[in-house]
Amino acid sequence: MDFLGELRTLKDQVLFSERIEGHEQYSRIVIAGMGGSGIAGRIFQELYSKRPVITVDDYHIPEFVDSKTLFISMSYSGNTEEVLSSTEEARKRKARVVAVTSGGRLSESADEVIQIRGGLQPRSSLGYMLMPLLNTFMDLDDEAPDKLRNMLKEMDDDNSKMKAEAEEIFKRELIPVIYGFSPFRSIAYRWRTQFNENSKILALSSYFPELDHNEIVPLKPTYRKDVFRFYTFDCAENPRIQKRIDATEKVTGTVFNRIEVPVSGNIGRAFFLVHYGDYLTYHLANLRGIDPTDVSSIENLKKLLSS
Amino acid sequence: MDFLGELRTLKDQVLFSERIEGHEQYSRIVIAGMGGSGIAGRIFQELYSKRPVITVDDYHIPEFVDSKTLFISMSYSGNTEEVLSSTEEARKRKARVVAVTSGGRLSESADEVIQIRGGLQPRSSLGYMLMPLLNTFMDLDDEAPDKLRNMLKEMDDDNSKMKAEAEEIFKRELIPVIYGFSPFRSIAYRWRTQFNENSKILALSSYFPELDHNEIVPLKPTYRKDVFRFYTFDCAENPRIQKRIDATEKVTGTVFNRIEVPVSGNIGRAFFLVHYGDYLTYHLANLRGIDPTDVSSIENLKKLLSS
Repeated sequence: MDFLGELRTLKDQVLFSERIEGHEQYSRIVIAGMGGSGIAGRIFQELYSKRPVITVDDYHIPEFVDSKTLFISMSYSGNTEEVLSSTEEARKRKARVVAVTSGGRLSESADEVIQIRGGLQPRSSLGYMLMPLLNTFMDLDDEAPDKLRNMLKEMDDDNSKMKAEAEEIFKRELIPVIYGFSPFRSIAYRWRTQFNENSKILALSSYFPELDHNEIVPLKPTYRKDVFRFYTFDCAENPRIQKRIDATEKVTGTVFNRIEVPVSGNIGRAFFLVHYGDYLTYHLANLRGIDPTDVSSIENLKKLLSS
Repeated sequence: MDFLGELRTLKDQVLFSERIEGHEQYSRIVIAGMGGSGIAGRIFQELYSKRPVITVDDYHIPEFVDSKTLFISMSYSGNTEEVLSSTEEARKRKARVVAVTSGGRLSESADEVIQIRGGLQPRSSLGYMLMPLLNTFMDLDDEAPDKLRNMLKEMDDDNSKMKAEAEEIFKRELIPVIYGFSPFRSIAYRWRTQFNENSKILALSSYFPELDHNEIVPLKPTYRKDVFRFYTFDCAENPRIQKRIDATEKVTGTVFNRIEVPVSGNIGRAFFLVHYGDYLTYHLANLRGIDPTDVSSIENLKKLLSS
């Protein structure tokens, strides 16, 4: 499947209805995952705060993981070495382990598996990875998946805004800087990594209000400011955050390109912004004449690591 | 006090012996703090994993904060609005609240206060903010503070390496990219924010192994690669991380400038790397003819927000 085809599967992924049963008795949730598989845990962590959710993106797990911990292992391929390592440690600590994967060694070794379809790039499987978490822990409206599907389909039908934005970046070879805020900090990170993997350019991400305590300082006096193009999302519900965005622009003389989000509800907004970033980075790859699915550096690295 | 004078207080800050008594009964630790005050919680979070430590850098706290939570409010000034807001919420949830501050509204409103000396920039008070956490939760050797002090003093006496590094960045107006790894991810972030506040330039930070799943991809094909200068720390104890650093360099044809860390133990390394970044960003400010203590953008923002 080409990358455009992959992007377009997102609207069907949101209909994925799997969930984890019997989670109530676990006082902590730990979610392991790297890169395109790990982003689902990061997004979920911001949307849910009834219990501590700790994300693990390394070989080892925190000391506190025990039999009261629900450990969710996310690896699209099922062969990510960091996740296999952390999952093995979790099992030794008697945590309940649930894997979300399309196959690989993870699906063979896990006691419980939420099986998702294969054949996609991990970063194109976000719906499959995220929906089981939302279905399990959030009170999703019965109509929510259909609404999400319709919204994403509309974006598939008209992504001219994302294309125009890609042209702005391409024309002047700009480095994107994406400023998020809660609960969309991880979406800024998602954009950054999609610029990395799809468009093959470096990008920065940060978030309000933290950036008002450090990154605001260079925005006026930094050298090379014309190398960067600044983004934020036009959907801050906290008036103090909205005021900060406006004031940060004003104080530093910086233009933040504000992505309009014509959607209500945090889950809808998260999916809208994810898909917006998917298209933006896809179009930028096209303009650069680069294959968005080519991640040969990652593959070459894996070969070198296993040699 | 000038900025160099401030930097040189770090060696005395590590002798600060305050601690939080009676913490054992709390099953979760939440640490609130922004920017230069928040970094202490981030560094601590990586060094300690016996209980979940959640850092809060926003106005609101997670829903799970309750009477079994030890809530540590870190604000050097004591007047950071996000921390005042989150602390107020924590108090309403009956968490035990301990403030680490030099004064302000936080010291007036908190039940328990660890009082630290005033008169510094928040980012220059890291020792005062971090030591109470280390004294309370880590098994510090009795001789550890003196050892830290001697190491930092040596760096004060000879910081020629940091100056030479600053000259490299200055000569070609480079944007630093700092790659950390556990337990020094937050040190990469600290460097980034010190480049922001002291040197007034933008910077990127990221960490292994996560970056091998996304940011590795553009390292060869990105445009404007010559704008960036890449750093990592030469003290990875996990051989799989060390192998990744070497392989990432090789696969992408990138030079990572490796900061030598002639110190043993994670706490010592953390302080060494913090102080290295302090000097590097200070010297860069000097070369740029910029006052490292000038954070007028932050002050102007505060005025605008309170108007």
